[in-house]
Amino acid sequence: MRDVALLTDLYQLTMMQGYYQNGYADKDAVFDLYFRKIPSGGGYAIAAGLEQVVEYIEGLQFSVDDLDYLKGLNLFAEDFLKVLQDFRFHGDIDAVPEGTVVFPYEPILRVKARISEAQLIETALLNIVNFETLIASKASRVVAATGGGSVMEFGLRRAQGPDAGIMGSRAAFIGGCQSTSNVLAGKRYGIPVSGTQAHSWIQCFPSELAAFRAYARTFPDQCLLLVDTYNVLKSGVPNAIQVGLELEAEGHPFLGIRIDSGDLTYLSREARKKLDAAGLKHAKIVGSNDLDEHTITAIRAQGAAIDSWGVGTHLITSKDTPALGGVYKLAAEGKDGLFEPRLKVSENISKITNPGIKKIVRFYDQQGKAMADLIALEDEQFQEPLTIFDPIQTWKRKTLTNFKTRELLVPVFRGGKRVYDLPNLKEIQTYAQRECDSLWDEVKRLVNPHHYIVDLSPKLFELRQSLLLEISNSVEKVSKTMK
Amino acid sequence: MRDVALLTDLYQLTMMQGYYQNGYADKDAVFDLYFRKIPSGGGYAIAAGLEQVVEYIEGLQFSVDDLDYLKGLNLFAEDFLKVLQDFRFHGDIDAVPEGTVVFPYEPILRVKARISEAQLIETALLNIVNFETLIASKASRVVAATGGGSVMEFGLRRAQGPDAGIMGSRAAFIGGCQSTSNVLAGKRYGIPVSGTQAHSWIQCFPSELAAFRAYARTFPDQCLLLVDTYNVLKSGVPNAIQVGLELEAEGHPFLGIRIDSGDLTYLSREARKKLDAAGLKHAKIVGSNDLDEHTITAIRAQGAAIDSWGVGTHLITSKDTPALGGVYKLAAEGKDGLFEPRLKVSENISKITNPGIKKIVRFYDQQGKAMADLIALEDEQFQEPLTIFDPIQTWKRKTLTNFKTRELLVPVFRGGKRVYDLPNLKEIQTYAQRECDSLWDEVKRLVNPHHYIVDLSPKLFELRQSLLLEISNSVEKVSKTMK
Repeated sequence: MRDVALLTDLYQLTMMQGYYQNGYADKDAVFDLYFRKIPSGGGYAIAAGLEQVVEYIEGLQFSVDDLDYLKGLNLFAEDFLKVLQDFRFHGDIDAVPEGTVVFPYEPILRVKARISEAQLIETALLNIVNFETLIASKASRVVAATGGGSVMEFGLRRAQGPDAGIMGSRAAFIGGCQSTSNVLAGKRYGIPVSGTQAHSWIQCFPSELAAFRAYARTFPDQCLLLVDTYNVLKSGVPNAIQVGLELEAEGHPFLGIRIDSGDLTYLSREARKKLDAAGLKHAKIVGSNDLDEHTITAIRAQGAAIDSWGVGTHLITSKDTPALGGVYKLAAEGKDGLFEPRLKVSENISKITNPGIKKIVRFYDQQGKAMADLIALEDEQFQEPLTIFDPIQTWKRKTLTNFKTRELLVPVFRGGKRVYDLPNLKEIQTYAQRECDSLWDEVKRLVNPHHYIVDLSPKLFELRQSLLLEISNSVEKVSKTMK
Repeated sequence: MRDVALLTDLYQLTMMQGYYQNGYADKDAVFDLYFRKIPSGGGYAIAAGLEQVVEYIEGLQFSVDDLDYLKGLNLFAEDFLKVLQDFRFHGDIDAVPEGTVVFPYEPILRVKARISEAQLIETALLNIVNFETLIASKASRVVAATGGGSVMEFGLRRAQGPDAGIMGSRAAFIGGCQSTSNVLAGKRYGIPVSGTQAHSWIQCFPSELAAFRAYARTFPDQCLLLVDTYNVLKSGVPNAIQVGLELEAEGHPFLGIRIDSGDLTYLSREARKKLDAAGLKHAKIVGSNDLDEHTITAIRAQGAAIDSWGVGTHLITSKDTPALGGVYKLAAEGKDGLFEPRLKVSENISKITNPGIKKIVRFYDQQGKAMADLIALEDEQFQEPLTIFDPIQTWKRKTLTNFKTRELLVPVFRGGKRVYDLPNLKEIQTYAQRECDSLWDEVKRLVNPHHYIVDLSPKLFELRQSLLLEISNSVEKVSKTMK
């Protein structure tokens, strides 16, 4: 990340100045980052983006250029610009590790800091976590749909700008993709890169056969041929078989073919027959062309003979749900280490926030499967048997026994210093897979999944109810005063 | 742009090596960049991203780091890596100016270069032009829906990564937005920045009234108050009026209020009445909350009293159509300045490419309204009366008389040197507005717009038909040989 101090909304800076000028410079606050809805109609999401959050926080300072620009806006006072000049983040951040399975309303990242510091970083934190969590979650669905096949991410050309391609490729790997076409993402994050040739390669040679032979000559041990430039079954596959046999005769393994258009089920089955008949049983078939988890499911259900899937636009943009909609809400404020819970009301019950300094507790059964999560206050402990209830439909109750618990948030920054060792990307991918394994299949169903239980702890529920009542009373009072 | 040489798909690099190793290093090629479908069901798109393309091309070279990384992949030969070491783009690029109204299948950017150079840049060009064109087009729709109201772009927190926020903000301004909340976009592109306060500001003070007064104290001349933290009509608006009157008594103009939740039609009308009754007729009402062109249209149709619109997620992600789907296809190849047209067939008629070196000609009537476009070969001239016809439904004909023509592509690079002066962003916005003015209202309708005519010139049509026949014959021949 570069040049990031101004990667924020203007109101964060105007509010900062307001806090300074109104004697609130040393006020502390706690903010929760959470989302309200799982993307793509799924049953779970996979948290991602923490590494980029860390980079952002560690690189966060205003350049002379930045301050000159702000000065030119004629909004900011000299003394406040001086404050910005020395600005560093000094607060605490807790977050769930990347790759953690998460659900709506869970504070997947929590900031405790001077309120002005906590506000400044809101926009960038949301930008990063929203996008990477979105793409990791989408990738997890796409990979699940292949039933053990491998997925290559190749969406860079359709990604929403360079960062989206690069960070999206990283998130897709966390969600289970095996490789990317994006060379810069490969370099930056160590993701395996893959790719073959485009139709233009084939078109440039006097014939398809000449194009295939030329490619085989250049990459005899990585030869995967694109067979749909002219006609898959009449031209592409026969020519590929001829070159494949030539390669094998010279002692090179023929990797296989890629089909990028037409009916993938029919074409892959026919191509498989031809490859097998020619003695190329080990040659793989890669399918691509506007795929997502639903087309992959349908094509597989019809018996396609595809070993590996190239997925672009739908994955890199999470096309059906291109924004996670994460928010960052004030949960408590205080001074000198003493905090009071805060809550925001809304006409819309789903937009009322959860007050206080909170944690996420996950309850596992003896098989290690996740049964339910509680959003709880930081100091709460739970004994079995434990009866939990839905915070809106409070008559929906469930009693948990014989459980193990795990708290999901881990300390990442303390007093502005990082206290968390970042795992490498492969470790995150492996952890994300274990996380998915801890869910029941019903929760992972791609369409109409079972709703995983996330309840509020009894103490948090009580706190919320009492604050709601308090605000409601005080609004009535204001309203009467105004009449 | 930084660190861009590897912002490409791996296959571009493997193909490059293949061209070098198979004696095709000095082969030239022409590629067209175009899209097949207008996003959001609209009747037109607005081209954007050329400035970032220029930056990319001008900064395009491989660093020592990049070459080390590529070497480590064990795919590339030493002599080819040496070629990359000295790599610069030496070709020609023509493109439509940013802000131009464009339609499907039109080559909005055309590259003529060594084929290896033309391939390397494909991915980044698509990434940039796809995204910025998408967002400029979406912004144009959102702005049109307000019927002359002003639109503030504030989607950074929901954008698909930092670049998407920054480039998206730029593209939104081209499409007609008046300002952005994104400070970095403001600094980088000179876009006016705007913003007020968040709910957390209000929550941090002992009361809403105290929060409003504190903000008014800090920004007495830029005071726009967020009124929906507790209750818009019972608390927010009455408190805002009180502070507004206090400000005005001290000689400061009260800017107005922002409503960010609830029913914007009802709340804005009631708020308007209260503001007017208090003598604050000039105070503006800003509406926000998950808006797009359709909700804005509906809210306005119901008589909302909203002067200015804050639009986030739907705009910055083009949520209903989050990818433009632009492609980059080989149109001709040659050597020493002589080119032969190339065409790619497909089972899907919409995916057959247009061969040859082409231009876009727009035909205007005497009132300056655009009547139709022709995709034509580079050397064609047109005399009236001119009969044009649909390339698929060829019986659909139209005769144009009394027209003026304009060619849309302009030279941007010649021999790797830029020959185009980049206009500033405000000029691009003004030009985009004039471009929209040249379209009939029917083409600009947000839902079910009139289909603007884009036909092929008779010469291009003939060329395409003859190449299709030629390929079809040669596939039959291959197929017979294989049996």
